[in-house]
Amino acid sequence: MNASSDDACVTAIGPAQTPGRAAPGLARYPDVPNSTPITFTDEEYSDRLAAVRQRMASQNLTALIVTDPANLYYLLGYNALSFYTPQMLYVPLDGELYFFAREMDANGAFRTSWLPQDHTFGYPETFVQRRDTHPFVWVAAKLRELGLVNNFEHGQVGLEMDSYYFSPKAFEALVKSLPEYRFTDSYELVNWIRVVKSPAEIALMRGAATVCEAAMSAAHHAISVGERQCDAAAAIMSAQVRGTADFGGDHPAIVPMLPTGAGADTPHLTWSDQRFVRGETTVVELAGVFRRYHIPMARTIVLGKPSPRLKYLAESTGEALNEVLATVRPGVTATELAQVWNTSLAKHGLHKPSRIGYSIGVAYAPDWGERTVSLRTDDETVLAENMTFHIIGGMWMDDYGYEVSEAVRVTDTGVETFTAYPRELLTKE
Amino acid sequence: MNASSDDACVTAIGPAQTPGRAAPGLARYPDVPNSTPITFTDEEYSDRLAAVRQRMASQNLTALIVTDPANLYYLLGYNALSFYTPQMLYVPLDGELYFFAREMDANGAFRTSWLPQDHTFGYPETFVQRRDTHPFVWVAAKLRELGLVNNFEHGQVGLEMDSYYFSPKAFEALVKSLPEYRFTDSYELVNWIRVVKSPAEIALMRGAATVCEAAMSAAHHAISVGERQCDAAAAIMSAQVRGTADFGGDHPAIVPMLPTGAGADTPHLTWSDQRFVRGETTVVELAGVFRRYHIPMARTIVLGKPSPRLKYLAESTGEALNEVLATVRPGVTATELAQVWNTSLAKHGLHKPSRIGYSIGVAYAPDWGERTVSLRTDDETVLAENMTFHIIGGMWMDDYGYEVSEAVRVTDTGVETFTAYPRELLTKE
Repeated sequence: MNASSDDACVTAIGPAQTPGRAAPGLARYPDVPNSTPITFTDEEYSDRLAAVRQRMASQNLTALIVTDPANLYYLLGYNALSFYTPQMLYVPLDGELYFFAREMDANGAFRTSWLPQDHTFGYPETFVQRRDTHPFVWVAAKLRELGLVNNFEHGQVGLEMDSYYFSPKAFEALVKSLPEYRFTDSYELVNWIRVVKSPAEIALMRGAATVCEAAMSAAHHAISVGERQCDAAAAIMSAQVRGTADFGGDHPAIVPMLPTGAGADTPHLTWSDQRFVRGETTVVELAGVFRRYHIPMARTIVLGKPSPRLKYLAESTGEALNEVLATVRPGVTATELAQVWNTSLAKHGLHKPSRIGYSIGVAYAPDWGERTVSLRTDDETVLAENMTFHIIGGMWMDDYGYEVSEAVRVTDTGVETFTAYPRELLTKE
Repeated sequence: MNASSDDACVTAIGPAQTPGRAAPGLARYPDVPNSTPITFTDEEYSDRLAAVRQRMASQNLTALIVTDPANLYYLLGYNALSFYTPQMLYVPLDGELYFFAREMDANGAFRTSWLPQDHTFGYPETFVQRRDTHPFVWVAAKLRELGLVNNFEHGQVGLEMDSYYFSPKAFEALVKSLPEYRFTDSYELVNWIRVVKSPAEIALMRGAATVCEAAMSAAHHAISVGERQCDAAAAIMSAQVRGTADFGGDHPAIVPMLPTGAGADTPHLTWSDQRFVRGETTVVELAGVFRRYHIPMARTIVLGKPSPRLKYLAESTGEALNEVLATVRPGVTATELAQVWNTSLAKHGLHKPSRIGYSIGVAYAPDWGERTVSLRTDDETVLAENMTFHIIGGMWMDDYGYEVSEAVRVTDTGVETFTAYPRELLTKE
């Protein structure tokens, strides 16, 4: 159930500024002080691109346009909070990659990405947030200038039609500017490649797990009768961003969610400046992050003696989660996990219609899920080794709620939980 | 140049849990402990809706579909990190409003929104992140069931075609499911209503300003030779989220940006686990937030003695920013501000092609700008009293950079800066 024997990777990449042996696929820090770390080796990036192209071929795509910031990080290493203006990566089935972003961002893209600077183009400022045009009009002209708009009679170009930072206006700009392209939904093509993690990624996620434990511990310490919710949230975010001595923290895709009191029936509330009240329950959902890899965790904290109904809910939910964890192994389907959950809850007269988990890994705001596998009865995905999930027992009743979760890796024979934190209702006087 | 005589609003809403006289438009906290605060009065929300409908009429819209989380907060008060799954508000020119979200979120929407619960509908979990359908297919059927899809022969329905959380897939779901609707781009209709702030909003922004000053002070204190960047970022985020005794902090739409060393030429980098180096420069851009209202600020911190070229850049940029601030008043255009900036920089042989500011107010990830007014030569917007802007002198040179900014309100005769923080290159040994 716990960390496997290749733990060595963790210590190898841990001390962030000590050049040392890297885990397979992880690049060493350059010896230049304060240079920007490139996280993965050239081989790791090559493998990823090859896998994406194989899937492109199977979907009959001649080219793919990538806009999701998590996919950009996965393929390029590019990491900046620049995605509030449009950006895209052009990935042909064969040939060179090109990245397009706002001029001020394109100039410095090489600081976090392996892509050569002469393959990165910045659109002029005048295209930013304009009523009558869109940056992708400029990008389309640049693609044409680069000779990439010919010979598409027999191919299709994939678009991420449900990516957060690809708007209908951006889509229309491409359609109108590139009539030669036959666009089609690539669905979550790159996201699906991301579902199975490499050893290097698992090593980073183990680092994120230590940050996650520190953050939940900070939450347990900070949530107290009479304290303001915002002060507890500050303590949690400080722990998330500081990280540990070995793993410096990164910003989470979602800030801590802290629904409290009667609001604990509502999963995605954050915090206010109100104070915690004796007897009330707070549901805490947060993530530890290391180099954009997320390990989420949910726990429920009650200030005082839990009510009988909350204890009953916590025990039933915990039992169901344990039964799901015991079922995880390669070959099992997402459907089966959801069925185990439903059957276990039903024994206690309970029912939960929402999914009990999803695939996790690289993330940017506003979600730390990968938008691929959902653990629910209508998802037929077959689990494979090194898939990673956030498995959530979340029960939102009227005026109260309970949540407990585990981030897990599918091992060759079963499951590894990334974190070791008491899997129970947390009480505090 | 500074806070005007209606400062009384600030103290009136300050002590968060003390019922007291509210500023015009600001609701008092309910007396129930730990209940969710509704920030604005019914009248304030009515005024906003009336302004939106007036603009809808002028754009020949029979209905408007709102998806931008900042616009949802502005119109409804709805505040949750639930926008990673699709949600929308249906606003007819006449008649009732309806809100649609994922079932688990719709159930608790009344906790932060004034909209009655029977006007909020939750789509079933099975529509979440599915390859072959979209939640808006369900929403379209519900609109039809509510009798809202008839008599649209003479009207158009506005869509936020460039909103962050409205994807091409969502757009296509609406177009295919509602053939009776003639959809058109509403452009940033609600955003444009938000450009001029009410007294209640100004009061909240003054609260955010005190949080902003505390956060920049934390940055100046934490950024030190030998400290890890992530530890400084943790101190900043803690100050942002904690806020002050009177104004509990809220989560910023963008985490602190801290490009450092040679990377200070790249505006949107965050932080790593590397350590700050003597002699290097860090550009800090952050925001203070109170109840979703943002006050951003940028400053540049040098660890040691600044180089002559950096001093020259800082002095030239500071002078240009001061000249722009001295020009701000009702009746001036965005174009003119940009021209003042360009002329001032040119005296020093400098040039900056990007916009020097944008409208600010309510925000969610990934941007704290309102996506309306841009302070640049091709924006003809005429400034009016109670518009609020982030005015930025940001110079990104090769391998170094400098940034200084002020959040401002246009007063009846000139400008009010929200924060009082030394407007200069910050040095530290």
